[in-house]
Amino acid sequence: MITGKNYIGFTPSANGTKTYTTFNPETNTKNEEVFTEATSKEIDHAIVLATEAFKSFSKTSGKEKAKFLNTIADEILALDTLLETYSKESGLPKERAVGERARTIGQLRAFATLVEDGSWVDAAIDTAQPNREPVAKPDLRKMYIGLGPVAVFGASNFPLAYSTAGGDTAAALAAGCPVIVKSHPMHAGTGELVASAVIKAAKKTNMPDGVFSNLNSSGVEVGQQLVKHPGIKAIGFTGSIRGGRSLYNLAAARKEPIPVFAEMGSINPVVILPKALSEQGAVWAKTYASSITLGTGQFCTNPGLLLGVKGKDLDKFIKVLSEEIVKIEPTCMLHPNIKSAFSKNKFKAFKQEGIAISAEYKTDVKPNYAQQTVLTVDGKTFLENSTLHKEVFGPFSLIVQCKNVKQLETILYQLEGQLTGTLITANEEADAHPEIVSALQNRVGRIIFNGVPTGVEVCPSMVHGGPYPASTDSRFTAVGTQSIKRWVRPFSYQNWPNHLLPKALQNENPEGILRLVNNKSTTDAI
Amino acid sequence: MITGKNYIGFTPSANGTKTYTTFNPETNTKNEEVFTEATSKEIDHAIVLATEAFKSFSKTSGKEKAKFLNTIADEILALDTLLETYSKESGLPKERAVGERARTIGQLRAFATLVEDGSWVDAAIDTAQPNREPVAKPDLRKMYIGLGPVAVFGASNFPLAYSTAGGDTAAALAAGCPVIVKSHPMHAGTGELVASAVIKAAKKTNMPDGVFSNLNSSGVEVGQQLVKHPGIKAIGFTGSIRGGRSLYNLAAARKEPIPVFAEMGSINPVVILPKALSEQGAVWAKTYASSITLGTGQFCTNPGLLLGVKGKDLDKFIKVLSEEIVKIEPTCMLHPNIKSAFSKNKFKAFKQEGIAISAEYKTDVKPNYAQQTVLTVDGKTFLENSTLHKEVFGPFSLIVQCKNVKQLETILYQLEGQLTGTLITANEEADAHPEIVSALQNRVGRIIFNGVPTGVEVCPSMVHGGPYPASTDSRFTAVGTQSIKRWVRPFSYQNWPNHLLPKALQNENPEGILRLVNNKSTTDAI
Repeated sequence: MITGKNYIGFTPSANGTKTYTTFNPETNTKNEEVFTEATSKEIDHAIVLATEAFKSFSKTSGKEKAKFLNTIADEILALDTLLETYSKESGLPKERAVGERARTIGQLRAFATLVEDGSWVDAAIDTAQPNREPVAKPDLRKMYIGLGPVAVFGASNFPLAYSTAGGDTAAALAAGCPVIVKSHPMHAGTGELVASAVIKAAKKTNMPDGVFSNLNSSGVEVGQQLVKHPGIKAIGFTGSIRGGRSLYNLAAARKEPIPVFAEMGSINPVVILPKALSEQGAVWAKTYASSITLGTGQFCTNPGLLLGVKGKDLDKFIKVLSEEIVKIEPTCMLHPNIKSAFSKNKFKAFKQEGIAISAEYKTDVKPNYAQQTVLTVDGKTFLENSTLHKEVFGPFSLIVQCKNVKQLETILYQLEGQLTGTLITANEEADAHPEIVSALQNRVGRIIFNGVPTGVEVCPSMVHGGPYPASTDSRFTAVGTQSIKRWVRPFSYQNWPNHLLPKALQNENPEGILRLVNNKSTTDAI
Repeated sequence: MITGKNYIGFTPSANGTKTYTTFNPETNTKNEEVFTEATSKEIDHAIVLATEAFKSFSKTSGKEKAKFLNTIADEILALDTLLETYSKESGLPKERAVGERARTIGQLRAFATLVEDGSWVDAAIDTAQPNREPVAKPDLRKMYIGLGPVAVFGASNFPLAYSTAGGDTAAALAAGCPVIVKSHPMHAGTGELVASAVIKAAKKTNMPDGVFSNLNSSGVEVGQQLVKHPGIKAIGFTGSIRGGRSLYNLAAARKEPIPVFAEMGSINPVVILPKALSEQGAVWAKTYASSITLGTGQFCTNPGLLLGVKGKDLDKFIKVLSEEIVKIEPTCMLHPNIKSAFSKNKFKAFKQEGIAISAEYKTDVKPNYAQQTVLTVDGKTFLENSTLHKEVFGPFSLIVQCKNVKQLETILYQLEGQLTGTLITANEEADAHPEIVSALQNRVGRIIFNGVPTGVEVCPSMVHGGPYPASTDSRFTAVGTQSIKRWVRPFSYQNWPNHLLPKALQNENPEGILRLVNNKSTTDAI
C-alpha cells in the first residue's frame, strides 16, 4: 500500500505540510495518492543516519552486500502493485514495466555478483624491500573503499531501472555507500513501493538503519538541500542538462566540493556514409523510423541527429524514413509537462531558418501522446545555428544534409559531447573514413557500427556517459558494473599488520580475488 | 643554455614584454637569466597545436609512447647544467637534486613500462549473443582513451619530480594526452631545461609538434587562460589550497566543466597511542624530530599534527622531541616568499589562545633558512579553533594533548581531508582501537603503521590524494602508475569490425594484454 510517506532510514515519516500527487498521462487524470514532501529536519535526520550507517556498512563484506542486493531484487519482485503503479505514473505500457523491472533486478544481481566475487576492489600489493638502496621500500597495499553517503536523483524516463533502486543506487550500495534517494515527483508511488522493498531487504539482511532513505519532493528544494549538506559525499543524477548542471554548480561551490555524476542530454548523432545510403538506404530508413519512436523517443540514447551527404540517395532515405515514421501509431509521453516541453522544443526548431518539416504525424492524438517528427536542414545552416544542436526529448530527429564528407566531419567536431555515435556503412566503406570515426570518438562515449544507439547493455564493457554535457564527468560510466567506480576512492595501507588489513589485502588472499601483486596479476596468496 | 623562452610546441618563442627572473635562496640573490612570460597568443597557439597533436598522439601505440617517455628520461639525464640550475633556483642541496632527478627518471620509465605492457587500458570485452531472448546481445568492447590536451601546473617544492616532466606530465603523456606545462616561476630555468629535453625526445621519436609546450609565467594570468580555454580538457596541479581551489572554481564555471586534479594542503595527522608513548616514546620523538625537518619541512606529507593522550608519557615525548629538533641544523627554504609565509603562519599560530611553544630554533640563521618549531595545545582548544587545523608549510608541527582516546577520535573526525594518517602503536595496541583506525581512514588517502608519512613510493599500490582539501578528487591518486586514470575515459565500441578496432580490443589480442573477456580475466585470444 502506498502511504505517501518518506522513509527516513527504516522509519516512515511525514512531518511536512507540502503535499503533491502524481499524474496518469494515459487517462489524463491525477492519481489519488497524496505524497508528503520531506522537511528540512527529515532530510538532516536521513543524512545523520546515513553517516552513522556508513561506519559499519562501508566495512560490510562482499558476501553480505551481495545478500542485501539480491534480497532487494527478491523484494521488488514480490511487490504486488508495482507494475500497475508504474504504468499509471508513467503512461508506459505493462510490457515495458515488466522489462524494466527485469532490468532493475538484473542490475541488482549483477552488482551482487560483482561484490561477492570481490575482485572489483582493484587490490594492488607491493611487498616490502627492506634492503633496497638508497632507502628501504615499505609494504604498500591498495584497494577501493566507499566515498560515504550518496544522494541519488531518479530519472523521469526510467521509473525503475534508473530511479529508486536503479543503477546508481545499486552501484553505490555495492560500493558500501549508504544511499539517500530524492524520489522523482512523477513516480513517487513507484518510488515508495521500491523503497519499501529496499527497507525490507535491509532489515532482513541486518543492514544498519540509515543505509537507505527515500525522500519525497515536488520541487527543487529537497535536492538542493541534499547537495549542499556536508554529510553527502557524492551525487548521482539522470535527467536534463539544466537540472544536472545546477546540481553540479551547487556541489562545486561547497566548502568541500563533491563529485557529481550527472547523465544528461544527448542527441546521439548517426552518420550514414554515402555507399550505405545508396545500397541500403531504405532498409536503414525503416530501422530508424522505429528507433526514433521507440519508447515515445524518451530514451537518453534516442537518435536525434542523422547526418548524410546531400544527394538523391539521401533524398530517398529521407522520403522512406518520413513515410515509415508516420505509419507508426503515436504513444503516450511520461507526463503532460514532458509532452508540452516536446511541443515547445519542436516548434522552436520549426521556426529556425532553413528548416524543412519532412514528416509529422498529423492526425489528432489523445492528450499527452506525442506526434513524431522529422526535420531536415543543410549542413551550413546546422553549423551556424547551435539551437539545432539541442535535444528535443521525444520522437524527433533532425536530418542534416551535408555538402560533403569533409563538412560532415567538421559538424561532428562542433557537436557538444554525446552518449553515443553511430556509423552506418556499406562493406569496407568505414575503412576509407578513419577521420569520421576519429571525429565521432572525440565527441561520444560509445560508438555503434551499423546499428541503432537505443538499447544499453548492462555489462563491464558498456560505457554510458561521455564528454559534457552527455555527462558531467566522462571518466565514468553510468551503466554497467564499472559504474561502481563513481562512488569509490583508492585507499592505501603502508606497513599495516596483516591481521588488521581488510581481507582483500591479506597475505592469504582469503577471498581468492584477483590482485596485482608486485606488478603481476594473480589470485595466489603471498 | 637557458634562453628564457617558452616552447610553443617545438618552437622557442618569446613574443611578450613581461619578464622575470628566478631567485637563489641560498645566496639570497637574484639569478641572472631573464624569462619572458607567454603571451595570450602564444598560449592560444600552444593549445591549437596540442588539439591537432591529440588526433595522432592519442592513437600512438604503447610501444611508441614508451620510447618517447624513455627518451625523455635519457635526455633529462643528458642535461649538463640541470643539477646546478635546480639548486640555484630552489636552495635544495645537490644530493636532493640527484635524488629527485632519479625519481623523475624512475617515474617516466615506470609509465613507459606501463604503456608498453598495455594492460592498463582495462580492456573489457563482452561478445555477442545473437540468440539471446528477448533481444540479441551486441558485441561490446571497452578500453581507456585519453581525454585530450592536459594543462600541468608544476609544484614549487619538487622542481623535477612534480613539475615540467614530473608525475602529472608523465601520466598524461602515457595516457595519450598532449601536455601544456605552466612553468613554476620559482624554477623557470630548471623548467626550460627539462622542457628542452622533452622537445628533443619528441622530435627524436617522431611525436607530433604540439605534444608538449612549456609556458613561462610569473603571475596567475597564464594559468587562468589555460584553465578557461575550451581546448584544455583536464588540469593537474600541485600546490596550495588557495591556488588549487581557484583553478577548480574556474574549471567548474566553464561552459564545459573539466576535471581538475589538484593535490593541495595536508597536515598529515600522526596518532601516538598510549602504550607506544609509554614504551617507545623517546625513540619516536627522535624519529619525528627528523621527519618534521626533512627537506626543511617542505614535503606535502610533512607531519604537521601529532596527537596523543595527555599525561607524563606525552610530556616526556614532547620534551625529547623538543630537545632533539633544536639540535638539527636549520636548512634553506625554496624562496623568500615561502620563508616569509612560514614565518607569518607560525606567528599566527603562536598568537592563538592556549598555544605553548615547546621548541623553537633560536640561534640566528642565514636569510631564507627556517627555524623549526614545535607547539602544543590541549584537545579542547584545538577542536574549537580551526585556525590550528591549517597547514604551516615548513619545519613545523603541533602536538595536541587530548583528554582521552575518545577525544582523539572526535578530533580525527573533525579534521579536513588529508593525504596521510599515521598510527604509532605498541604490540597489539592497534587491535584495541579499531575506532581510531576508522576515523583516520575516513579522513585520509593512505595510512601508515609505525612509521613516518614522508616518503611517497611510486608503485601501483600508492595512493597520494585524499578527501578535500588534500585533493580536489579523492577518487584518484597523484602518485604511482594508477595516476594515469586521471587523464583517461572509458570508451566503448559496439559491433565494431575487428580490423578497425584498436589492437587492445581485437580478437587476436595482438598485444597479449590482460583483458576481461565475458567476465573472465585472460590474456587469451577470442
